[in-house]
Amino acid sequence: MHDVCTPVRAAIVGASGYSGEELVRLLLNHPRVDLVAVTSRSNSGQSVAQVFPRFASHPDARSLRFSDPNPSVLATQADVVFLALPHGVAAEFAVPLHAAGVTVIDLSADFRLRSAAVYREFYAHEHPAPELLSQAVYGLPEVYRERIRTASLIASPGCYPTSILLPTLPLIRAGLIRSAGIIADSLSGVSGAGRKAEADYLFCECNESVRAYGLPKHRHLSEIEQELSLAAGEPVTIQFTPHLIPVNRGILTTLYLAPTRHFKTPEEAAALDAEIAACYRAAYAQEPFVRVLEGRALPDTKNVVGTNVVELAWRLDPRTGRLLVVSAEDNILKGASGQAIQSMNIRYGFPETEGLL
Amino acid sequence: MHDVCTPVRAAIVGASGYSGEELVRLLLNHPRVDLVAVTSRSNSGQSVAQVFPRFASHPDARSLRFSDPNPSVLATQADVVFLALPHGVAAEFAVPLHAAGVTVIDLSADFRLRSAAVYREFYAHEHPAPELLSQAVYGLPEVYRERIRTASLIASPGCYPTSILLPTLPLIRAGLIRSAGIIADSLSGVSGAGRKAEADYLFCECNESVRAYGLPKHRHLSEIEQELSLAAGEPVTIQFTPHLIPVNRGILTTLYLAPTRHFKTPEEAAALDAEIAACYRAAYAQEPFVRVLEGRALPDTKNVVGTNVVELAWRLDPRTGRLLVVSAEDNILKGASGQAIQSMNIRYGFPETEGLL
Amino acid sequence: MHDVCTPVRAAIVGASGYSGEELVRLLLNHPRVDLVAVTSRSNSGQSVAQVFPRFASHPDARSLRFSDPNPSVLATQADVVFLALPHGVAAEFAVPLHAAGVTVIDLSADFRLRSAAVYREFYAHEHPAPELLSQAVYGLPEVYRERIRTASLIASPGCYPTSILLPTLPLIRAGLIRSAGIIADSLSGVSGAGRKAEADYLFCECNESVRAYGLPKHRHLSEIEQELSLAAGEPVTIQFTPHLIPVNRGILTTLYLAPTRHFKTPEEAAALDAEIAACYRAAYAQEPFVRVLEGRALPDTKNVVGTNVVELAWRLDPRTGRLLVVSAEDNILKGASGQAIQSMNIRYGFPETEGLL
Amino acid sequence: MHDVCTPVRAAIVGASGYSGEELVRLLLNHPRVDLVAVTSRSNSGQSVAQVFPRFASHPDARSLRFSDPNPSVLATQADVVFLALPHGVAAEFAVPLHAAGVTVIDLSADFRLRSAAVYREFYAHEHPAPELLSQAVYGLPEVYRERIRTASLIASPGCYPTSILLPTLPLIRAGLIRSAGIIADSLSGVSGAGRKAEADYLFCECNESVRAYGLPKHRHLSEIEQELSLAAGEPVTIQFTPHLIPVNRGILTTLYLAPTRHFKTPEEAAALDAEIAACYRAAYAQEPFVRVLEGRALPDTKNVVGTNVVELAWRLDPRTGRLLVVSAEDNILKGASGQAIQSMNIRYGFPETEGLL
Repeated sequence: MHDVCTPVRAAIVGASGYSGEELVRLLLNHPRVDLVAVTSRSNSGQSVAQVFPRFASHPDARSLRFSDPNPSVLATQADVVFLALPHGVAAEFAVPLHAAGVTVIDLSADFRLRSAAVYREFYAHEHPAPELLSQAVYGLPEVYRERIRTASLIASPGCYPTSILLPTLPLIRAGLIRSAGIIADSLSGVSGAGRKAEADYLFCECNESVRAYGLPKHRHLSEIEQELSLAAGEPVTIQFTPHLIPVNRGILTTLYLAPTRHFKTPEEAAALDAEIAACYRAAYAQEPFVRVLEGRALPDTKNVVGTNVVELAWRLDPRTGRLLVVSAEDNILKGASGQAIQSMNIRYGFPETEGLL
Repeated sequence: MHDVCTPVRAAIVGASGYSGEELVRLLLNHPRVDLVAVTSRSNSGQSVAQVFPRFASHPDARSLRFSDPNPSVLATQADVVFLALPHGVAAEFAVPLHAAGVTVIDLSADFRLRSAAVYREFYAHEHPAPELLSQAVYGLPEVYRERIRTASLIASPGCYPTSILLPTLPLIRAGLIRSAGIIADSLSGVSGAGRKAEADYLFCECNESVRAYGLPKHRHLSEIEQELSLAAGEPVTIQFTPHLIPVNRGILTTLYLAPTRHFKTPEEAAALDAEIAACYRAAYAQEPFVRVLEGRALPDTKNVVGTNVVELAWRLDPRTGRLLVVSAEDNILKGASGQAIQSMNIRYGFPETEGLL
Repeated sequence: MHDVCTPVRAAIVGASGYSGEELVRLLLNHPRVDLVAVTSRSNSGQSVAQVFPRFASHPDARSLRFSDPNPSVLATQADVVFLALPHGVAAEFAVPLHAAGVTVIDLSADFRLRSAAVYREFYAHEHPAPELLSQAVYGLPEVYRERIRTASLIASPGCYPTSILLPTLPLIRAGLIRSAGIIADSLSGVSGAGRKAEADYLFCECNESVRAYGLPKHRHLSEIEQELSLAAGEPVTIQFTPHLIPVNRGILTTLYLAPTRHFKTPEEAAALDAEIAACYRAAYAQEPFVRVLEGRALPDTKNVVGTNVVELAWRLDPRTGRLLVVSAEDNILKGASGQAIQSMNIRYGFPETEGLL
Repeated sequence: MHDVCTPVRAAIVGASGYSGEELVRLLLNHPRVDLVAVTSRSNSGQSVAQVFPRFASHPDARSLRFSDPNPSVLATQADVVFLALPHGVAAEFAVPLHAAGVTVIDLSADFRLRSAAVYREFYAHEHPAPELLSQAVYGLPEVYRERIRTASLIASPGCYPTSILLPTLPLIRAGLIRSAGIIADSLSGVSGAGRKAEADYLFCECNESVRAYGLPKHRHLSEIEQELSLAAGEPVTIQFTPHLIPVNRGILTTLYLAPTRHFKTPEEAAALDAEIAACYRAAYAQEPFVRVLEGRALPDTKNVVGTNVVELAWRLDPRTGRLLVVSAEDNILKGASGQAIQSMNIRYGFPETEGLL
């Protein structure tokens, strides 16, 4: 157990992307953390203030400089290392850091899957460190909080999976919806594509544009289906359609679900509605970062952007017999860096909301 | 039959909204039309140039002035009157204009439904002129072109219905998909809400925001289900979820469909894919305003905004057994005013693309 | 002097606009404040969570309810009252609250001017409480910090004035620029127009649009010229051109200034540049919320939005003999609510950055 | 003189950027032009429909394919060649094409300056073909229409210069403003940066951002000052500050000008105002693409985007003695490709608005 009076020493590998930048912001301001190293090959030698002018007023932003990433050096500097790297690359750092006893929180997909075969199917290359898969904990605190407390390797979930799993898992576990036939239709802001200088993500190509992409087999399906299958106790296959919309941040997911019970009459609908409400309250009433909307309001990304909160609401449709659930999150916070900090707080025994309000 | 050498005299009632403004633009520039009157209670007395500075360089924009709407005056001025009015109000003009022998092209929902009972169910008031419903033609040229040629009252379709019907009708007629279980998930630009001074549509409330609305029973469902039922030969109920996204114009619709045949093997999938391609080619290869994308491209609203084209593409998903179809259109053009002009062109024997390229 | 261990009880009158909403956010999270009342005629009776769903996860957001504004009730509840009201209306609350001994921090223009005659010239009505003008302190902490410490009525500056005064005042006081001929060209996000349901500020009217407005005599000129004149020791008249640009938040101001010295040679330019740098360092090196950029970087609103920081940079142009200074701020934070909290922190002896980082 | 019944054969070199794409659109739809070739090294072999899906419904978009640029081949194919290339590169094509008797319309800066020395000063390399400078005509139709009629090499103006020169030239020629001390403060949409895959122009870097750039000596100054000096009959140096704002298209320029006469009294101001109005009417009343706003309206980019029109309005400020003029244009149309087509129309004796309405 970490002594909660000594600050945790944290480092970020790959700190120049959008998730990395957000980790810098969160860790610079975290009251129980010393941010001791940030690495980026392209920015090596520059100060945090130079690379991210928006942080320049923070007292540490001028002194802390980007370095070249080096696992053995990092292992001597940091208690916990966040990896904000592309999949495949993250494992190259996770393996030596983990071996050196450093707690690793990996924001890539490298350790989210339990099966190296599924990894190969979805990511089109052999898993680089299959022996570590069994030790990794999927860093979704609302599901795996207890395991995160003692984890040495935390695989922080993807942005889309978080927006899909939090609304569906309680319903599946309670037997309120069928695990077959689930459709997740997701709308993501452009930061989800990363800070990549590609023509597709130029301002003029995204502004005044809406488009689907990656149909029909997006990589995130693998971790979504893994977690849904574990909850359902049987293999689950879902339909998932991501779209790119012209906002910086935010994911809105609309889920089309099939209740296990009919609700043709108003009475049946009201009874089922009450059961869903009870199910969500049981799951999330005590969760600091899940907000279940009752009443007439529907989720809106502008109500969660800049926060670590997932907002969700549901509607039963008696015409079709379906249950619709809509969720909204900040893809860079609850969908990435904020959730990673939440896991760190759990791992080190800090209040779970520390540095996240 | 109209003598194609004499210009048609056209008027627009309710010309100050977004659809009305677009009708002004299209009709000012239409080579076979004289725009003789534009009405708007709030702008009465002002010139088109004053109300719409963007048209001020058009020679007629200074001379043409907004007037108060008066059906009996309009009946003496115009051969064809476009109604860009809220539902319920449109009928008040359609009835006397139609009685006076004027061709009416109504962009509201007032004459889209064949059943006054369905109208009452979805629009929450009695239909104001049920006796005219049987004379109205649903102005979707790709389906009702022949009837439009001789129509005296054209009910131009809604923006969402157009984006949903054009991709689905050929597949239903060909028996390639089941008519049950259809899901339409639509994303609309903010102009779809009209030029209404409501706080929900202020810049700061829509920018950096994405939200679903109107769940689960949107009014447009009534005309969508009417047309799908006619094509299927049986009652069809669909799931429809509209979302508001921060673009001025454009609707992207993602359709989740169930093919009537299985396609587990690559051969079965390829065969079904070829049948779908053939079905769409048969329906749309000759259509000037439907663009079926083959190859890897997917629809993007930025490729259709400013045009009267609907773009569509499809993907079979062997993992789920579903067919996904995505469509994109400009909600104010093919979704409203452009389609109304297309119907006018058909009605008066003009080339169908006249004034729309 | 306030006992810094007891929380200050704060209230917000007019909490439903953008500045009011931001005050709610800042005060809910301020470690030394109890937010005891929020008022709004239109939202009276609703909880903060209902009116602002984005704050719904805060523990106080469900219990705190909007009330009708009533000065005598507020005077019993609160130590400090923030007025986020239109000019003219604010004074109606300021007078009784001030008389009752409450500290008033007014975000409107009502008490920014020292002269009731100038107020009448720019605001087109008689000043409602001229007797209070001499007691009001202009709440620009970088200039009036000492007077703010003991103020009973703080007139928090406008957004444009803050972006113009902070870059120019030190240069004028140091005699480095002439006080005549100053031009301030400002670009503001749409939140500057307030949460008003007017057609001009609809999403579709602002998105993909850029326009100047209010030329040539904007009301904010009066307070800008008052403060510049005080610094210059002579009457100053400036040119000020505001523009509306499609962002939610942020003001970028480009200032065209005339140095008092020539700098034709590179040596002269370098010497003047060094003097400007020294002047800004002397003024702002210790200021927590002014960031002077040296080196090649230029201000960008995205680096200050969400913070209480004004960023500024300058360039000498040897071709024209002018000095250009560019500043960037968040119009709702340093330009309004953040600055008001900064003044409150000073007034109550709290660390100046408390609740603002 | 071109026989106006035979279509002109046109080619575009560098057709994959934003200006090139707009030329493709305009020339595909121009009634007197056959677009015979489009070149782009990166897209060679692909059809116009593949590279620009938005044009895919045009009958020629499938048959016309991108080729590698080859001046000698182009000289046999085309009567007129548009160069949409970076400066420096354009001259490599202009020289052989011009020598082969092809009419060249160059959208780059290579032939805009009359002096090779000024070119070197602003573009930092030797002019690649100084011998052609004297033959080039600056393609601003409102100024050089007569010379354009017979030009063999047309140097189409830059986007910023067009927005600055059209409002100022008539006033300078009429002696209404001083040529010294002019300030041009310009706001440009992101398409002005071109379709370059650079991180600075990614959606998330431009959206919700406003920034100045290129201070204080932008390259476009050279052609602006050249044309102002010619009009003034003396050397003119101006202040020019470009800013990047989050819109796809549009430039708004605010000009700060010094009238040659005082106007302290309302009568003096009214008289000067009438003279300015008369000056602009004399210059532009017959111009199809300049719209002078009288009355209370101010230019707004949304009123000109998608058109070849420059909109302008002015205000006298009696407080400062300055004249403010604001102009708005579409940077890709009147600021680039539309203006180039306008020149082509003049050069070939077509109606000047052909293909541009």
